[in-house]
Amino acid sequence: MPVEWKNLDLTESFSKLSPSSTSLRKDLTEERTKEWTIPAGAGLDFYYGASLVSDNVLQQLKALAEEQQLSEKYSMLLNGERINTGENRRVLHHLTRGQLGTDVTEDGVNLGTFYAEQKKRIAQFASKVHSGEIKGSTGKAFDTVVQIGIGGSDLGPRAMYLALRQVVETKLNALFVSNVDPDDAADVISLIDPERTLFILVSKSGTTQETLANRDLIIERMQAVAPSGYDASRHMVAVTSKTSPLAGSKQVLDSFYIDDYIGGRYSSTSAVGGVVLSLALGSNVFEDFLSGANEADAMAQESNPLKNAAMLDALIGVYNRNILGLPTTAVLPYSQALSRFPAHLQQLDMESNGKSVNRRGEAVNYPTGPIVFGEPGTNGQHSFYQLLHQGTDVVPLQFIGFRDSQTGEDVEVDGSTSQTKLKANLAAQIIAFAKGSAHENPNKNFDGQRPSSLLVADQLTPRVLGALLAHFENKVMFQGFCWNINSFDQEGVQLGKKLANAVLDGSAEDGALKAFAALLGVS
Amino acid sequence: MPVEWKNLDLTESFSKLSPSSTSLRKDLTEERTKEWTIPAGAGLDFYYGASLVSDNVLQQLKALAEEQQLSEKYSMLLNGERINTGENRRVLHHLTRGQLGTDVTEDGVNLGTFYAEQKKRIAQFASKVHSGEIKGSTGKAFDTVVQIGIGGSDLGPRAMYLALRQVVETKLNALFVSNVDPDDAADVISLIDPERTLFILVSKSGTTQETLANRDLIIERMQAVAPSGYDASRHMVAVTSKTSPLAGSKQVLDSFYIDDYIGGRYSSTSAVGGVVLSLALGSNVFEDFLSGANEADAMAQESNPLKNAAMLDALIGVYNRNILGLPTTAVLPYSQALSRFPAHLQQLDMESNGKSVNRRGEAVNYPTGPIVFGEPGTNGQHSFYQLLHQGTDVVPLQFIGFRDSQTGEDVEVDGSTSQTKLKANLAAQIIAFAKGSAHENPNKNFDGQRPSSLLVADQLTPRVLGALLAHFENKVMFQGFCWNINSFDQEGVQLGKKLANAVLDGSAEDGALKAFAALLGVS
Repeated sequence: MPVEWKNLDLTESFSKLSPSSTSLRKDLTEERTKEWTIPAGAGLDFYYGASLVSDNVLQQLKALAEEQQLSEKYSMLLNGERINTGENRRVLHHLTRGQLGTDVTEDGVNLGTFYAEQKKRIAQFASKVHSGEIKGSTGKAFDTVVQIGIGGSDLGPRAMYLALRQVVETKLNALFVSNVDPDDAADVISLIDPERTLFILVSKSGTTQETLANRDLIIERMQAVAPSGYDASRHMVAVTSKTSPLAGSKQVLDSFYIDDYIGGRYSSTSAVGGVVLSLALGSNVFEDFLSGANEADAMAQESNPLKNAAMLDALIGVYNRNILGLPTTAVLPYSQALSRFPAHLQQLDMESNGKSVNRRGEAVNYPTGPIVFGEPGTNGQHSFYQLLHQGTDVVPLQFIGFRDSQTGEDVEVDGSTSQTKLKANLAAQIIAFAKGSAHENPNKNFDGQRPSSLLVADQLTPRVLGALLAHFENKVMFQGFCWNINSFDQEGVQLGKKLANAVLDGSAEDGALKAFAALLGVS
Repeated sequence: MPVEWKNLDLTESFSKLSPSSTSLRKDLTEERTKEWTIPAGAGLDFYYGASLVSDNVLQQLKALAEEQQLSEKYSMLLNGERINTGENRRVLHHLTRGQLGTDVTEDGVNLGTFYAEQKKRIAQFASKVHSGEIKGSTGKAFDTVVQIGIGGSDLGPRAMYLALRQVVETKLNALFVSNVDPDDAADVISLIDPERTLFILVSKSGTTQETLANRDLIIERMQAVAPSGYDASRHMVAVTSKTSPLAGSKQVLDSFYIDDYIGGRYSSTSAVGGVVLSLALGSNVFEDFLSGANEADAMAQESNPLKNAAMLDALIGVYNRNILGLPTTAVLPYSQALSRFPAHLQQLDMESNGKSVNRRGEAVNYPTGPIVFGEPGTNGQHSFYQLLHQGTDVVPLQFIGFRDSQTGEDVEVDGSTSQTKLKANLAAQIIAFAKGSAHENPNKNFDGQRPSSLLVADQLTPRVLGALLAHFENKVMFQGFCWNINSFDQEGVQLGKKLANAVLDGSAEDGALKAFAALLGVS
């Protein structure tokens, strides 16, 4: 059966969907809590009992998955078809962590082999840095690695590093410079020893304005403070595409490659994440991370959404967005190690599905990607949860939790450890949101009926983190298929770039643009 | 004239408001850009030309400000009336930075004098730490201060410290522990020298579960690794209320006091922010920060919103929320130093105005506080801006920018410095959102008509930061007055606490709650 690309509102299954009469206060029982769960890979489980769906809605969502051919479209993607219609590109981030589809070959090159080769080269390079075979230009061993990149070259790798640096033994300290604000680079520069620092310059195109400006700023500073004999080119590697101006540059020690089929926000499992994670944490850790992602990717091939966590999460999200009319989603990890994971998901989701046209470029007349935000619990409980509990708008919640902490350092206070308190709070919040609590004083009343889901595993290990990342990547992909949009381009970033360049080269014509530039002191 | 507390939808001025026909493409001229601006204190200016209001709407919003008696209600608050109806409390954070109303006296104590005395005691204490008169228990000078607190005791002080540590000379390094997740404390512990670290325990009630657990965890670790002679009580001070169990404890070196009239999310200018900022940055820096806040507070007393930046910002926000129906707001600082400022504003706004009942405890039937999120530009441009530009939902934007960087370390690349690139991008984004750009390919089309405002100053100094903080605090307060809600309590945080304690003491009854606890391994 050939696949058909259909707008959501033209499907028969969508027209049959309507708000369920689910009352979480009544329907969220012990049984439903225990039974409404699916494995999501690497020991991660997806619990969806506290979402606002009924058995009947689940069946309708299953029909929608079939009608929109989610499974078939994922297969096409895995097989290397040009799913990214806007840019006429393949979408191959899954292939960076294992091959699930057919061989993908282009210009005589097997792209799975190409990604695997880069991974091998990275592992060899990292091993030489760790052993001291590769040293800085003044003969000192590297102790710090600094990634220079922005957007997908920053948020994902940074979030992954922060998530894992406490659970494995770090080999090098990692820092990140992203913002073109020169204070960002200045801060990192103040923390490093030039002789012992290796920089990773990450830009697929090799032309990213912020990244090249930061490179030049950093090299100038390093040369100013390092002793004579310091050679900046021996303190930098590049991650870029083979066709970029950076590829094979003499200004870097080595180059590692990606290609146009790895979108920035999907690049944590490619060389973009691989170099920094392999250097900082070891290539075996990076391999474990990939194997967890691969396991989740494989499980996402299941065509029945009631057995496919990423697909079901996607469908429940579409239900929240298009049937219940809820425009936002909060991601709430009960793990300090995931402090920047919500910022990464914010990019992943909002950059992928914040679109108003379908994959053929025609306007859609229904809401697409939601606004995504979040902070770790329990911190959020003492902050914005007030609105989540008692505000006038309902926000669907995605909780994430772990049975064990990463370090195991803990203490018992008032009869329980901190980790136990953390988990008790997580369980309590799900129920407080779902069931509320009646009170005669309306100011102390909680209506409940605020939906959530929970992803849970034993511990946040590299494998679990890989599965968690892949879960959300695949969720976003399936939602894009439901909405019939292209989740893999980002034309929305272009206009700002163009206007900024017009300000910088003096060609800006709009009076208000010139006025805003002038009031900021850009003449 | 006695003030009247009226729901928004019962005001005559609100009933006259309707969506304006403003077309930003046409109406946002050079002239409007330059002229639609008001000073916000300490050299900060508020530009609102790119918002979706017309002259006519501005006049209607002025009428709303008058009818809702925003200025009179602010005066009542400044004069110490019990504006926080839910808890029958005064609201006195303004008084921590200067007296603008009448004397506020309770039980014979002048509260303005009380706050000033605490500030003086903090300055004296900080001075002794800086001079080495106060040392650690093993005779070593302190080089690090660690704040242990959560919610308002964490987000505001942390955001302020990060905002200022590059623009002034730091005296001590500051770190923060907030989350009950034991990995949070473990991370900070790995970075400090016990003999040279001073802890600040911050809890108004003295009973915050997360904070006390972290205190005990930290003391246990310090005692385990520090040499004999280490005395934990000489490495800790408390910030609490005089009636709390912590007050005057022998387990701390000294205590500094706040009271029930300083809400956690409004406490950055009280001892909660004062101790850590004075120790880390110097009490003169903290004084400058307060003076900027006080200047903005004073300017917010102006009754005409067309001359009052905080009030006008509030009214435009109400217009976006209740007339245009826009449920979210993004805060986008073009300054890496403000990396955690959006997280603080998220708490400030969502915890204050995420309410469904009015100040008398009656349900309101209109939307109140929006969902607030944000990240620094230019980073966000490479991330979630895609949705902001081309998503199906419109998100009002609050830009913040500065003419100069904090460190001044910069380099020219391709004819412009990084700071100039940063500002060119900011100007470009405002125009891209406002005016869009037509393109025959709908995928490359930008509708524009997406509203924003801009707060701008020369440099992010302590005084400017104070004004910036006060601007948003006063904005949130004025919006609360418009919506007739109590912005100063937070009953929404209670139910989760209660249920978590029920899990911990084994008294939980709900089957689903017990099931969620069990699946997380809490038996």
